[in-house]
Amino acid sequence: MAEVRARVALNVGQRSEIPAEIISFSGLQDGLEHVALVFNKADKNDKVPLIRMHSECLTGDVFHSSRCDCGEQLNECIETMHQQGGILLYLRQEGRGIGLYNKIDAYVLQSQGMNTYEANNHLGFADDLREFGDAVLMLKALGIAKVRLMTNNPRKLHALKSAGIEVDHVVGTQAHVKVGHVGNKSYLETKVKHGDHMLDIKKIAKSE
Amino acid sequence: MAEVRARVALNVGQRSEIPAEIISFSGLQDGLEHVALVFNKADKNDKVPLIRMHSECLTGDVFHSSRCDCGEQLNECIETMHQQGGILLYLRQEGRGIGLYNKIDAYVLQSQGMNTYEANNHLGFADDLREFGDAVLMLKALGIAKVRLMTNNPRKLHALKSAGIEVDHVVGTQAHVKVGHVGNKSYLETKVKHGDHMLDIKKIAKSE
Repeated sequence: MAEVRARVALNVGQRSEIPAEIISFSGLQDGLEHVALVFNKADKNDKVPLIRMHSECLTGDVFHSSRCDCGEQLNECIETMHQQGGILLYLRQEGRGIGLYNKIDAYVLQSQGMNTYEANNHLGFADDLREFGDAVLMLKALGIAKVRLMTNNPRKLHALKSAGIEVDHVVGTQAHVKVGHVGNKSYLETKVKHGDHMLDIKKIAKSE
Repeated sequence: MAEVRARVALNVGQRSEIPAEIISFSGLQDGLEHVALVFNKADKNDKVPLIRMHSECLTGDVFHSSRCDCGEQLNECIETMHQQGGILLYLRQEGRGIGLYNKIDAYVLQSQGMNTYEANNHLGFADDLREFGDAVLMLKALGIAKVRLMTNNPRKLHALKSAGIEVDHVVGTQAHVKVGHVGNKSYLETKVKHGDHMLDIKKIAKSE
């Protein structure tokens, strides 16, 4: 599987000019333009590189919406990888795989009191439609068979393991709690209670 | 054309909890999930609302890459619209319409010395493949026939005018110059010299 690599410099959080390589891939299965961002040549230098599989969230990644923690997790990951090296797989599967328009429909239902999973279910979708098959292909194209996985989500761990990628250990991300008018506390709590995410729910509850 | 509206709160630049409505549309032509973000109910309150048509740039909007000014223009627009009201049309046409993977190919050529237009041309693409027909449909769905247009790009002005949207006047955006190791100075200069963008090139040249 061929790759094309270009150099970029990122400016996120408090950091500027973070050097990275952005990589495109041929031969992926789902026809979407997934990319990898490699920090500190982790694919070449690290025997067991730090990996994150991040699924696109326009409202979180671009606009840092108060409804979720996607953009903050993404920036945390980039800052960590800038320091320690790592590979970010940016996967174009919005809204846990339901797409942006359906996610807006789900937001309307959430405003009426449903949680994030209930809203998706009400629209006829499973809890989580994300697929990580292309992420596995991207890792294999980069020659990576063993990783440290940055996640709180056990589904991602299982997805890699069952595809034959060895996960040496899991590195958690922080709980990015937003306590303003909209806020993401109940969203985070639901991810823990219903989605088995490994976040400290007591810390979230006490964060106000 | 039906719309679905959900409330969000954005956290960009130095601002937090900027209230907005995010809107999806049915009946668009190109099958992409374009959205509108409405600030201060500008579609209801403003007779001649401030409008920006922003085309997706993953590397700029999410990662604030030093190669371009897309993310900074986007955040400037959001801050302005938070203060004055306005409607941001976020259009899913990456890389001046060539897509992310082709843009990465173009970045490789740019690293070899081509400018942004030369690189796209070398790959077989016209200078700018963006279409604004769906943006016009979105404005019409929102009942908007006359706008103040936030842009430096005369192509956008002409696109709206030729589709029967009256442009009362144009509001320019700032020159967001990045002077670091990578930098976007020559990118901005090329947009002015080759793409007729209305930015003060002398100010860009003096910015170091």
